[in-house]
Amino acid sequence: MQILPNIKGPDDVKALAPEQLPILAEEIREEIIHVTSENGGHIGPNLGVVELTIALHRHFSTPKDRFVFDVSHQGYVHKLLTGRYGEKFRKIRSTGGLSGFLNREESEHDCYGAGHAGTALSAALGMATARDLNGTDEHVVALVGDAALTCGITMEALNNIRSSTKRLVVILNDNKWSIAPNVGAISNYLNELITNPVYNRLHQDFEEFLEGVPGGDRLKKFGSKVKQETKDFFSGDYESSLFEKYGLRYIGPIDGHDQKLLDQYMEFAKKSEDPVILHVLTTKGKGFEAALGDPEKFHGTSPFCKTSGKSKSGKPGPSNYQDVMGRALVDFCKKDKRIVGITGAMPSGTGLKYLRDELPEQYFDVGIAEEHAVLFAAGLATSGIKPVVTIYSTFLQRAYDCIIHDVSLQDLDVMFCMDRAGLSPNDGATHHGLFDISYLRCVPRAVIMQPKDEDELVDMMKTGLEHKGQSFIRYPRGASVGVQMKDDAEAIEIGKAEPLRDGDDIIIWALGPMVQDAFKLANKIGAEQGLHVGVVNARFAKPIDSKLLIENAKKARLIVTMEDHVVTGGFGTGCLEVLQENNVQTPVVRLGWPDRFVDHGSSGTELRAANGLSPQDMEKNILDAYRDAEPKAIAADTTPVLGYPSGK
Amino acid sequence: MQILPNIKGPDDVKALAPEQLPILAEEIREEIIHVTSENGGHIGPNLGVVELTIALHRHFSTPKDRFVFDVSHQGYVHKLLTGRYGEKFRKIRSTGGLSGFLNREESEHDCYGAGHAGTALSAALGMATARDLNGTDEHVVALVGDAALTCGITMEALNNIRSSTKRLVVILNDNKWSIAPNVGAISNYLNELITNPVYNRLHQDFEEFLEGVPGGDRLKKFGSKVKQETKDFFSGDYESSLFEKYGLRYIGPIDGHDQKLLDQYMEFAKKSEDPVILHVLTTKGKGFEAALGDPEKFHGTSPFCKTSGKSKSGKPGPSNYQDVMGRALVDFCKKDKRIVGITGAMPSGTGLKYLRDELPEQYFDVGIAEEHAVLFAAGLATSGIKPVVTIYSTFLQRAYDCIIHDVSLQDLDVMFCMDRAGLSPNDGATHHGLFDISYLRCVPRAVIMQPKDEDELVDMMKTGLEHKGQSFIRYPRGASVGVQMKDDAEAIEIGKAEPLRDGDDIIIWALGPMVQDAFKLANKIGAEQGLHVGVVNARFAKPIDSKLLIENAKKARLIVTMEDHVVTGGFGTGCLEVLQENNVQTPVVRLGWPDRFVDHGSSGTELRAANGLSPQDMEKNILDAYRDAEPKAIAADTTPVLGYPSGK
Repeated sequence: MQILPNIKGPDDVKALAPEQLPILAEEIREEIIHVTSENGGHIGPNLGVVELTIALHRHFSTPKDRFVFDVSHQGYVHKLLTGRYGEKFRKIRSTGGLSGFLNREESEHDCYGAGHAGTALSAALGMATARDLNGTDEHVVALVGDAALTCGITMEALNNIRSSTKRLVVILNDNKWSIAPNVGAISNYLNELITNPVYNRLHQDFEEFLEGVPGGDRLKKFGSKVKQETKDFFSGDYESSLFEKYGLRYIGPIDGHDQKLLDQYMEFAKKSEDPVILHVLTTKGKGFEAALGDPEKFHGTSPFCKTSGKSKSGKPGPSNYQDVMGRALVDFCKKDKRIVGITGAMPSGTGLKYLRDELPEQYFDVGIAEEHAVLFAAGLATSGIKPVVTIYSTFLQRAYDCIIHDVSLQDLDVMFCMDRAGLSPNDGATHHGLFDISYLRCVPRAVIMQPKDEDELVDMMKTGLEHKGQSFIRYPRGASVGVQMKDDAEAIEIGKAEPLRDGDDIIIWALGPMVQDAFKLANKIGAEQGLHVGVVNARFAKPIDSKLLIENAKKARLIVTMEDHVVTGGFGTGCLEVLQENNVQTPVVRLGWPDRFVDHGSSGTELRAANGLSPQDMEKNILDAYRDAEPKAIAADTTPVLGYPSGK
Repeated sequence: MQILPNIKGPDDVKALAPEQLPILAEEIREEIIHVTSENGGHIGPNLGVVELTIALHRHFSTPKDRFVFDVSHQGYVHKLLTGRYGEKFRKIRSTGGLSGFLNREESEHDCYGAGHAGTALSAALGMATARDLNGTDEHVVALVGDAALTCGITMEALNNIRSSTKRLVVILNDNKWSIAPNVGAISNYLNELITNPVYNRLHQDFEEFLEGVPGGDRLKKFGSKVKQETKDFFSGDYESSLFEKYGLRYIGPIDGHDQKLLDQYMEFAKKSEDPVILHVLTTKGKGFEAALGDPEKFHGTSPFCKTSGKSKSGKPGPSNYQDVMGRALVDFCKKDKRIVGITGAMPSGTGLKYLRDELPEQYFDVGIAEEHAVLFAAGLATSGIKPVVTIYSTFLQRAYDCIIHDVSLQDLDVMFCMDRAGLSPNDGATHHGLFDISYLRCVPRAVIMQPKDEDELVDMMKTGLEHKGQSFIRYPRGASVGVQMKDDAEAIEIGKAEPLRDGDDIIIWALGPMVQDAFKLANKIGAEQGLHVGVVNARFAKPIDSKLLIENAKKARLIVTMEDHVVTGGFGTGCLEVLQENNVQTPVVRLGWPDRFVDHGSSGTELRAANGLSPQDMEKNILDAYRDAEPKAIAADTTPVLGYPSGK
């Protein structure tokens, strides 16, 4: 490394001679491959934007100028060019390291953070409008992927650009992928622009501009060499392009790995007095063979071997919840052709790839379009189809109104598999699924479930598929418990909790993976304090098993609730409501994530410790509350002791 | 009326002779004008689609065929043509009458209900896909307004049409309006299609089709008479239209009030073997002079005089909350140029029209694009502008992820004025704002306020404008309390409740308009039962004034919470959480809307009575709970008695 370590900020990038840029690009790629091989991360998108990001920093000047990166998982190069090379970059996505996304708190060069797709254009338009109002002159550049055009928000922003500002640079970073290959009409249209460009007239001012820059002549001549290099590098189909309908000046497509070309176009875009969209073609995973060969895997990856590209997995553990869900859905779909699976561009992440591969006619990838996904499901459900929307908890926030206004209000029969409910440790605050119980609990008729293990996940899927109405199953990212799976799933009675361990001093109502934590705590407190601590697998965050909870609260001195979710308005709060409605005054301790955003970190264990949820913290909370609670006569009708997990 | 009363269903529409159709259209208009003059309602949109809806029912056959109406406030004609003429139509939007929107429970001809814009295309695509999966042959027709194209969901659906189905009819009902005049690039583009059509070749199959239908020749000839009639009735700009980029066959624009033309085009659309979009030009308010003269007022109106068009208002009452907010915002914006107001196509509904008229440079209407509205605000806030997003509570559900992922996570300085929080009685379930506290309370840093009257609303606006962070003010639709306004607003300390009436037996914590109900109940219970009932104006649903609440709970035998919001996860639940966290076991009664969807009705009073929230119901709940609660020693440090409303 000769250049990258000396880049302390954008000025250093600008100071480089053109012939140094390929070396810089190579060093950046080396660094990104190294770091992601250690920490995992979004290697593919970042390897694709190396030259593009260099060009941005040579022609614009952050922090005065503003770069808004859509999703911002492609921001590693930007981080390296803005003084963040070093120890914290090496620990990216880990405790104490940089975020895997842009982050306003991390650097003044990050004017806008993200983690969900489709927000960049709207935010950039806000910045450009603010600039116009403030009378300042900074440039605002939005970098959006082709997949962002499948997301409605981007189209809402496009509709507003012309009426809001005259100066905005949009870079369309087109690599033909969202996370999976991109879908839909827009994707086809972009392909058409690339493969069948219409060689229309150049605009006069662009011709003039080209005459003034080195190499401009080369562009003007449309030489066959250049065309080959960039594969139809110049559409010029300005008048009739989709973007022109939106009042944007369209330029491209151009080769996003040709540093000189990028230089020229970037300068033109910068000087444009109209909003302009520069269509740049990039290759996901450029410069790393393994990533080029498997772009879906190397979109965002776990640690891998730099030479082979193979995952650095330890000894084989239990299946991921995602694989269990995906395979179970295939089984259910085979038995009932009315069942279909829907994903918003996440076939691998959610495990829906199994359905795609085995029963493609019962599989729908609608692109990064969560609202459409849910409304599409609503339409299907009016016609006798049972849709299963599989979606990350945090992305379901996008479709909140569609759940209330369309699915629930009309009492349509839709099941939601809410993936990554709970923590997504390396990704951090934009990806944790910590709010879903709170925002769904107020929705009438919602059935909200969380399984204690992967066997119960499949039971809950059967439950939701048989239930005529709206069911929501939340489950965590990653490894399941590793229990023995039953041969045939069994539906669970809606609203029925499962008592697992008897106790009458303290009874813990735990949801999902917290059942295991509850067991450990119950055993420890039992052994060390001589208290009888019961454990209930709550199963349902709505409806809560009121009958059992009231019985428990009447006999125990303390009720404890545990959930992998914020405590504000969550499952524990639902238990409070039940007790209040039934005039039961037993003290309750609610354990869950605090009322603040949770950062990224190396592991759930570390993040828990940082947020008062370590086993020690939880034990202390419980024992303190127990000591404060008033003694209560012990009821005679104790439930029988049930073992776990052998009790299943 | 000779024809309409005999229309018992679509078959009767089909059986009419062509010369009877204009008479039917006239009778429908007469009926709609009459009924909306009595009940209020969406007169303008419905008068615009009379001929179009007749044509739909002559060429398609519901319930087998499916009509999905976007927003569905334009469904009155459809209701009249599907057996719903009569008493219930006369009471539309009132207790016991029809809904003002389509409603699956109301008729088998309503296959999909709505109330929010932008959902029709996605839902219709779901139905068309289900048809293909089921192997049936029904037609699916989506009727969308031009304003729906400003909404991202519609664009998400457009992107997916071609990959999902080959048969779908989209009717673009273009009247140049959302509720206010439509905005943005798409609107300009549609205008262009109308005013500068490109007379390209007709498609071969369309030519052949026209030869086979009566009058087809007339169309083929492009006679000047026809062109005048329909104002450039035929664009034919198929190859380069925006819709073609999305893989839809575009036909139009055609005159939506020419029954014969509609007949021909509808039949063509029905037989098309590709997804087709028929661009129909309609006139909002067609057939009613007053509505033509003021389309914004007559989009959705309160009862009016049929001859003059003037509102049937009683004696002048207090200002609407909307007017108070709108005027106050103008004042704040005058004093501070950094403040701007944003609306999603609702300048009149929200009261933002005052800002539009007085300070247009500080006003932004982004179209029906709630997500963009919030992200645009986020972008502005990163650059020193203080945006005020004014939006109906129910529509803010659309932007839920933008609040969490963009505004709150990045701690941006944005104020939200949440209009129509609480009931919107005539509109019903799609428009009530009954979930916002629940879905916002779990969002870290959110400051959620509700004023007890219009003077406090302005104080809260000042509070939110001075607060550096995310503030949400919820307030009801319609008339305010009628209190004296202070000359200058005063900011309120964040999280500080206002004790209004002393008491130590029962203390009622009331939010917003419930403060008045609380006062009445306190006086009545005090007088009749001899109990000391305190009243606190809670002001903040988050953060709750924990200190005062704990003090109150320690001295009173019962705490009562009252809110115009669902009880699940709402303000009262927030109070439960505070008491639990502080180990205070005082019984609590939470009064609010039950955990079910609330229908439409003539008034809030009627809907409250139907949902257990009448004054009598509330009193009984409180007294029953008081009797069940354990006695408690009365603390000595009672707060001083404060009068209300004179205490202000």
